[in-house]
Amino acid sequence: MQLGEFGLIEVLRKVLGEADPDLLIGMGDDAAVVRCPEALAVCSDTLVAGRHFFADVAASDLAWKALAVNLSDLAAMGATPRWALLNLSLPAGHGEDWGRWVDGFIAGWRAMAVPWRLRLIGGDTVATDGPLTITVVLLGAQRPAPMRRDAARPGQGIWVSGSLGDAAAALDIARSRRGLAARRPQGLSAAAEAALEQRRLRPSPRLALGEAAAGCGIGCAQDISDGFLADLGHILRASGVGARVDVDALPVSSALRPALGEDWSAWQRWPLTGGDDYELILCTAPELEQALLDIGRATDTPLTRVGEIVPASAGIELRWRGHVQRVEGHGGHEHVF
Amino acid sequence: MQLGEFGLIEVLRKVLGEADPDLLIGMGDDAAVVRCPEALAVCSDTLVAGRHFFADVAASDLAWKALAVNLSDLAAMGATPRWALLNLSLPAGHGEDWGRWVDGFIAGWRAMAVPWRLRLIGGDTVATDGPLTITVVLLGAQRPAPMRRDAARPGQGIWVSGSLGDAAAALDIARSRRGLAARRPQGLSAAAEAALEQRRLRPSPRLALGEAAAGCGIGCAQDISDGFLADLGHILRASGVGARVDVDALPVSSALRPALGEDWSAWQRWPLTGGDDYELILCTAPELEQALLDIGRATDTPLTRVGEIVPASAGIELRWRGHVQRVEGHGGHEHVF
Repeated sequence: MQLGEFGLIEVLRKVLGEADPDLLIGMGDDAAVVRCPEALAVCSDTLVAGRHFFADVAASDLAWKALAVNLSDLAAMGATPRWALLNLSLPAGHGEDWGRWVDGFIAGWRAMAVPWRLRLIGGDTVATDGPLTITVVLLGAQRPAPMRRDAARPGQGIWVSGSLGDAAAALDIARSRRGLAARRPQGLSAAAEAALEQRRLRPSPRLALGEAAAGCGIGCAQDISDGFLADLGHILRASGVGARVDVDALPVSSALRPALGEDWSAWQRWPLTGGDDYELILCTAPELEQALLDIGRATDTPLTRVGEIVPASAGIELRWRGHVQRVEGHGGHEHVF
Repeated sequence: MQLGEFGLIEVLRKVLGEADPDLLIGMGDDAAVVRCPEALAVCSDTLVAGRHFFADVAASDLAWKALAVNLSDLAAMGATPRWALLNLSLPAGHGEDWGRWVDGFIAGWRAMAVPWRLRLIGGDTVATDGPLTITVVLLGAQRPAPMRRDAARPGQGIWVSGSLGDAAAALDIARSRRGLAARRPQGLSAAAEAALEQRRLRPSPRLALGEAAAGCGIGCAQDISDGFLADLGHILRASGVGARVDVDALPVSSALRPALGEDWSAWQRWPLTGGDDYELILCTAPELEQALLDIGRATDTPLTRVGEIVPASAGIELRWRGHVQRVEGHGGHEHVF
């Protein structure tokens, strides 16, 4: 199947643009028109082959991840996903291969979009002489007051969902298998490596947690995409505060734990500064911590208290095995061009 | 100036993210949050260097056009621009050059965004190993009922704004100057060629016209981006109708007219099938035609009646110099990959 621009849009419209009473005009006109909730959260991310994903990634995994990284941003606001736009730049000259690729892409998209009732309402498909590039834009209903980066206050507890470092360790494994510069985690079984790889390829955005946390009045959250320390740093800078972090308390998966042991550099590389976790950091006043724990149970989300917000003058203090540790570098991956 | 990802976002936020009482959370958090109008029009377009614009285009012209093509989609719905997201994929390895490029980009963006009160609320900046790629997403307040592609009915007049074919003729001139395959329009003065080039580089989206037309009850419109015949074809297919078009009546600029003369193939190439005009096609019942003319005067927009909607069985009939003409090909540029 060879898909022209109009052909591909039509395929996506038919398969992904499901019925929605609030969708007044869907794909196929100059713009989509939606009946709006009172407040709307809007986010977008662009992923480029060879930069944000391996060029040979399965189309279904790519679709899943492109949605997940954006859904994670909505989760961090406490918003509910509603509508998506998908802008694809597809490398020219692939001829008939795109039909199969699109089938895989649709399967991965639906696996994530259907459970969260996310509707595709627009986008664009173009050819490029460069790498496959995908931009996803999401619109979410912002029912509770949004959780913000700049709302952390001294005395609040710092909580994280799930476990940290799995995706970064999996990336090191994937890179070392391809002969690229990497630090391969040691002492892991094949099953553990496979579990980490699933976390890298198919992250689970914490939407149920985010919406419930905002709904019970928690005011400060941020998703972990650049790495725990970098994203905590965004909160601290925006809020004008510092933090004390108990690294011994950081939640790590049973798959990753054997690779960490007593090696500070391993803790630093994966749980502390590794990206792509798509967990949430939440800063919570003591009187809301019990409510947060209840939400964790109700949404089946592990939640761990890993430190507390302190005045800015204290900076960031990391405690590990009874000592205060320093972190080298800024602790977040940034693409410099 | 070397700009990292966070640095560039910060520059854009400071310069382009102006105050707006409906912007509850702006750039710099996981998502922006806006207080919504009742209905929202949403559109996006992706432009790729070497495909949709010459790689050496001035940054200010690129910013203008990336906004204009999206604003034109909002104009076709009758929506009012409110918020924008900007996703840039910038070629890696340019080092210190981006600072100056960003200055130019901001100047072109502001020239279009400020008069239309369009606020930048989010986006993403990434590095790519491929060509410069830009995705703009716009959100507009949809106050009147949206104008739709599928609302043309037999007996309605077909109207177009402005003039047709200028941008396509300018593209042929630009291509022939670069030694690329083109048909250079003949008999034009240097001043006329410069006027056409301005129409190509800096199209004017018909926002005031679109909003007023929707407001007075006109129900069917489409912007001309793929070419008049292709875009009229979108209306006809979506509405299940045909059209009779009086090609002699098509509005052409005084700059382009000398290149057309009695040459049917020239009429076909530029006014009929040339893309990038960003004018509007409006289909209007006879009782609304006076109101449409009044809107044209009030918004200083030339409007021309170029034909009428007929039953589907009649297909598309083009009359030119007293004869019915056939058009070769499908009459719209499509990127096939």
